[in-house]
Amino acid sequence: VDDSRHIERPYLVFVGDANDHVIAKTAFGIVEWRRADCLAQSGLPGGAIDLGLPHLSPLQAATKGARTLVIGIAPPGGALPDHWVSALVGALEAGLDIASGLHVRLETVTALADAARSNGRRLINVRSPPQSFAVGTGLKRAGKRLLTVGTDCAVGKKYTALSIHRSLAERGVSATFRATGQTGILISGGGVAVDAVVSDFVSGAAEWLSPTAAANHWDIIEGQGSLYHPSYAGVSLGLLHGSQPDVFVVCHEPTRQTMSGISYSVPEIEEVIDLTVRLGRRTNPQIRCAGVALNTARLDEPAARDLVAATERRIGLPCTDPIRFGVQTMVEALL
Amino acid sequence: VDDSRHIERPYLVFVGDANDHVIAKTAFGIVEWRRADCLAQSGLPGGAIDLGLPHLSPLQAATKGARTLVIGIAPPGGALPDHWVSALVGALEAGLDIASGLHVRLETVTALADAARSNGRRLINVRSPPQSFAVGTGLKRAGKRLLTVGTDCAVGKKYTALSIHRSLAERGVSATFRATGQTGILISGGGVAVDAVVSDFVSGAAEWLSPTAAANHWDIIEGQGSLYHPSYAGVSLGLLHGSQPDVFVVCHEPTRQTMSGISYSVPEIEEVIDLTVRLGRRTNPQIRCAGVALNTARLDEPAARDLVAATERRIGLPCTDPIRFGVQTMVEALL
Repeated sequence: VDDSRHIERPYLVFVGDANDHVIAKTAFGIVEWRRADCLAQSGLPGGAIDLGLPHLSPLQAATKGARTLVIGIAPPGGALPDHWVSALVGALEAGLDIASGLHVRLETVTALADAARSNGRRLINVRSPPQSFAVGTGLKRAGKRLLTVGTDCAVGKKYTALSIHRSLAERGVSATFRATGQTGILISGGGVAVDAVVSDFVSGAAEWLSPTAAANHWDIIEGQGSLYHPSYAGVSLGLLHGSQPDVFVVCHEPTRQTMSGISYSVPEIEEVIDLTVRLGRRTNPQIRCAGVALNTARLDEPAARDLVAATERRIGLPCTDPIRFGVQTMVEALL
Repeated sequence: VDDSRHIERPYLVFVGDANDHVIAKTAFGIVEWRRADCLAQSGLPGGAIDLGLPHLSPLQAATKGARTLVIGIAPPGGALPDHWVSALVGALEAGLDIASGLHVRLETVTALADAARSNGRRLINVRSPPQSFAVGTGLKRAGKRLLTVGTDCAVGKKYTALSIHRSLAERGVSATFRATGQTGILISGGGVAVDAVVSDFVSGAAEWLSPTAAANHWDIIEGQGSLYHPSYAGVSLGLLHGSQPDVFVVCHEPTRQTMSGISYSVPEIEEVIDLTVRLGRRTNPQIRCAGVALNTARLDEPAARDLVAATERRIGLPCTDPIRFGVQTMVEALL
């Protein structure tokens, strides 16, 4: 067990037997933003996730120099499926550490704890909060903050925040990406998985995560969940209040029919803007929407361009797909 | 250490050196709803809380038959003040168990763990969740639910829920009080302290707490925090979504100038009604406000009567002070 968060590279990205891209977002995120650190992927029979990496067993990957098996799947609830355990034990026996963003701590699985000990390997739980937090104070902090919010889970909040952060950094603007989920932590090497924080301290954790800064510094904060998602809205609201963002970007997946994991309708972008302003102005009366980020991965390029243009006209704010078209216009409007 | 939640009576209610009624609400709540179980109170120099009970030392109380010291103070953040420890050790040495609703688990204080072990006494942490929960599903459950909500913390949400529950029971209506905080658990002997649940599972815990029931059964659910309180709004929203109430009662303390613990203004009752409906209809489209409960303890009786009448005219819904005037009109309108 090691809470230091230092993860040895390169990675073997483990995708289990997943065949749903939504629950594999950790795997895709690491490959997208840390491609150079990803040596290979490894899965189980029945799985259908292809990350575009070589497919290797843990032993093959260890032989080629991999140091850590990173669990790239986030099952609902964050539990570790029993049928993964023997493959993970095999990875420890092959000489790999294991890094996990699951809710369950790896060492609570006896077979993993035993194998880690007998093989001298580390079990790294990035989802466990790095410290305890105070309750939120609601006090105004110096510096500028941007929060990505969503019409749903898994619509591009992390990608949008990472894209905006990279664009600001390229322009020489002082900016920090603030990770609030396991994948963001695996990518950036720091942060707090706010959905693992005791509920009384979520806004306090968000305040801790983006502390007082220089007046022209931007914290780019990864959002979580959605104010409209009945499983996670409380987390989203605590994060919104504690982040006290000056601006927010609404992230949306236009082909989604129902919300992630449940049979609820996806709210309209305008509803999310309105509700985020109404709730967010409690801790920052100046809060405003800076634009809309569409995740158009399931549309062809002409359709995506048309939808971005139509959405920009309809909302009256910059709109883009950060992955496909970049965030230049949005960031220029922001500055 | 004992998570069984069984607390031996009678109680010695410990108020430390508190002199603020707001943080002593646990003590007052236990005395109000479990008077027959409260043998005495015990404090520290500098304290000014008078519960109307005999003042006894732990040793005196133990001699008179007390079985458990119940910590009646909830300091912000739920930590245990260092200067309480020697008095608590003295209580264990006098033969009392200790029951606590604090966030910190009692056995993590070494002196308490040692004294409990060497004296054969129990340390009972009612705030720790009794089990782990799943994420909320948002699925509709049978039965009727009432949730108390607040313009602030410590405005009477628990008292209002307990009063409504008692009134329903007296009328022979099938009803269950559902505690969501430490005092409610100490009073009713069950429930979940939702502010101690990991944030991802708050709405799931609320769903677990008020399960599917007969169509004419009422769960009367104690609210927590306020949607307008920047420290706790996320907890309030998770509880609202998971409780999927058919009706809610807004609780309000009319003399409060700023919100509990912070320098934020208290919202208007109408704002809370509007926001609760807007957010609550996500999991129950039929949600409606059943009335307003004013905590008029700081007003004289004529002023309280005038304010109740004026509020009822203004809002157009039943209004009362549950403690002072009962909940008869509100409950009749409900049924």
